[in-house]
Amino acid sequence: MKIQKMPGTQDILPGTVEKWQAIEAKARELCQRYNFKEIRTPIFEATELFQRGVGETTDIVEKEMYTFTDRGNRSVTLRPEGTAGVVRSYVENKLYGEPDVTKLYYIGPMFRYERPQAGRYRQLHQFGIEAFGSEDAALDAEVIALGYSFYTELGIKDVRVDINSVGTPAIRAAFREKLLQYLVPMKNELCSDCQNRMDRNPLRVLDCKQDQAKFAAAPSILDSLDEVCTTHFEQVKQHLQLMDIPFQVDHRLVRGLDYYTHTAFEYKAAGIGAIDTIGGGGRFNGLVETVGGPAQSGIGLAIGLERTLLILQHQNVDLPVVNTIDLYMIALGDAAQSKITALAFELRNAGFTVERDYQNRKMKAQLKAADRLQAKFTAILGDDELERGEIIVKNMQTGEQAAVAWTELANWLQSANG
Amino acid sequence: MKIQKMPGTQDILPGTVEKWQAIEAKARELCQRYNFKEIRTPIFEATELFQRGVGETTDIVEKEMYTFTDRGNRSVTLRPEGTAGVVRSYVENKLYGEPDVTKLYYIGPMFRYERPQAGRYRQLHQFGIEAFGSEDAALDAEVIALGYSFYTELGIKDVRVDINSVGTPAIRAAFREKLLQYLVPMKNELCSDCQNRMDRNPLRVLDCKQDQAKFAAAPSILDSLDEVCTTHFEQVKQHLQLMDIPFQVDHRLVRGLDYYTHTAFEYKAAGIGAIDTIGGGGRFNGLVETVGGPAQSGIGLAIGLERTLLILQHQNVDLPVVNTIDLYMIALGDAAQSKITALAFELRNAGFTVERDYQNRKMKAQLKAADRLQAKFTAILGDDELERGEIIVKNMQTGEQAAVAWTELANWLQSANG
Repeated sequence: MKIQKMPGTQDILPGTVEKWQAIEAKARELCQRYNFKEIRTPIFEATELFQRGVGETTDIVEKEMYTFTDRGNRSVTLRPEGTAGVVRSYVENKLYGEPDVTKLYYIGPMFRYERPQAGRYRQLHQFGIEAFGSEDAALDAEVIALGYSFYTELGIKDVRVDINSVGTPAIRAAFREKLLQYLVPMKNELCSDCQNRMDRNPLRVLDCKQDQAKFAAAPSILDSLDEVCTTHFEQVKQHLQLMDIPFQVDHRLVRGLDYYTHTAFEYKAAGIGAIDTIGGGGRFNGLVETVGGPAQSGIGLAIGLERTLLILQHQNVDLPVVNTIDLYMIALGDAAQSKITALAFELRNAGFTVERDYQNRKMKAQLKAADRLQAKFTAILGDDELERGEIIVKNMQTGEQAAVAWTELANWLQSANG
Repeated sequence: MKIQKMPGTQDILPGTVEKWQAIEAKARELCQRYNFKEIRTPIFEATELFQRGVGETTDIVEKEMYTFTDRGNRSVTLRPEGTAGVVRSYVENKLYGEPDVTKLYYIGPMFRYERPQAGRYRQLHQFGIEAFGSEDAALDAEVIALGYSFYTELGIKDVRVDINSVGTPAIRAAFREKLLQYLVPMKNELCSDCQNRMDRNPLRVLDCKQDQAKFAAAPSILDSLDEVCTTHFEQVKQHLQLMDIPFQVDHRLVRGLDYYTHTAFEYKAAGIGAIDTIGGGGRFNGLVETVGGPAQSGIGLAIGLERTLLILQHQNVDLPVVNTIDLYMIALGDAAQSKITALAFELRNAGFTVERDYQNRKMKAQLKAADRLQAKFTAILGDDELERGEIIVKNMQTGEQAAVAWTELANWLQSANG
């Protein structure tokens, strides 16, 4: 019986994996330019970390975590997102003791038990950045800019940045009451999701796509901000303008996580059905303390790589994928086959990409393989060449061919390759 | 209360992560040269896959797996090794339908509930390659060569390759009887591990370090091979000689996995205590069928990245880690700070690595930060320069400085950076 992959997981195969490599390379390159350094935290953590760091009342923690008991009887959870682990690591490794702002990035798998559907996986992959130790609005703006450049430099068009300020926990608590006064009278008219959210997190009710029209006159959190929050938000917007990052303010934007303070933002793009969120983030000035660390502020973003690929596909953007074979080596006979082993090893050691036959195929089948792989050169070693210490090399583009001495082969390819 | 990482897991932080990046880059580069393509399989799979694909009587499956039940009541296991998932994927995606040999590689985390100790983690990381669809001994030798080059090109010295042939399942069954005849009389003198293994997998008894001296006269599986196996093994050795890969035959080498056929091999290096195994692999001609696929042969290797790093450290090998900041930008005053936002964005867009202050620090502290980060250039923007549309740029190596117009900054850096 065949065993299949688990529902909601995927095999990323050659032909597709190159796209993943390309978008990850772009993420790494951008982080290099902005001086964010990679951090790698474990795939699983103590369940308590996510209960505290993501929030007990979030959908993720309530419904979607892969939680189990390990052989040492500890409750363990496959990370559902990247921030909690990075914050835990920042605290545990006392990175807050460093003199400069700590700027970190991660790329890797996350796990959420959701209903599998197009673009939604139970093992999903995210690129994220987190910066700790500064409340400077320039940092908020640069985090937003890095994400924006990630999409645009990949070639995604019409990326929209929505931003909001969600204030401080105290401001949100007061706004929550104000909002409930507005929402309670219409409770029976709202969808069941909204009714549910009204009890747990009324701010997220405003996010509901279904009931959007009903909230036209809802109060705006921006009217509830104090001076510090307003000033910070104004500065973030100014810095975005200085960088020419197009954005719009959406006072209903709150994000699915409880820990955001001040800046919250989302990237949207046309592609999957309607306009869809393809990434986002925000400030989390209380999170480091929640996880047991000192009072250090933070800001970050997370970008779904599956979403990014889906948008790229939808917008017909071709990623620059280079995948060339320098030389396909064809042996005629056993003695030639052995010599090919030695020559291929030498050329690979010199940095060339070399392929050969391992199936004892006829010359014609091997030539076909060389074509299929789009090898730049093909080399044929027969009895005559074997005797003379030579090999016939053919340029597959021009059709030119030459007999090259074995000892000269690397040099010859080097110059012919340009 | 602080939350800590789970025992046996690690945080890979900036300062260390660059070493991981370097060894992974080497793995990818070698796979490129040998034309192995990346495959990414899920972190968790159906538990049955490992029971069948790794083997019910292996230590891994018996004692070390992270197995749990998901919210859909399926038995799920965090992959303890890479081969089973790759084979499952090869079968499920019908990669055997491709005309050429399928050559795949993977890099990623594996999970084994072992006792944590130096160099042993519960979340460990492996680089592995698998090739399907050929029994050509040249392929065995190239797989071994790729692993050997991985270590040596990283700079690891005195890498030893041990090879053996473990024949076919039928040959192993016959040899098992022969070996038991030799072992049974001395059973009471053997360690408890050996006694235990005698029942389950007597070939692995010969691997025991403690009882090694007692096995001097033990029969060799090489004397039990048939002609096909012997010829294949001779050819593998010939191909290794053609590539000048130093190796030695160790007829006791069997590896911890049940599925090997013909070639089995290990890499060893002095470093961690005595000579230790740092990687290995072998042929697995029956495994594709075991997992429900057609009769397709396979061969692969797996290399522990933690082990590799430990050996590099032990041998005092410095990996070439480049980590430079092109420009550290210092602003004096709020207006300058805003201008820096715009200039930094422009320079980062042009590909430069730019860092700045986000903590409103005094100029002296910012200059110190530039030093700490070993920035190649520092730029200072004060009131005077702000008025003139210029910035003072200083080469931190030579001490030379110049006033550069904002519009010329990218070009200036380009030429100064050489």
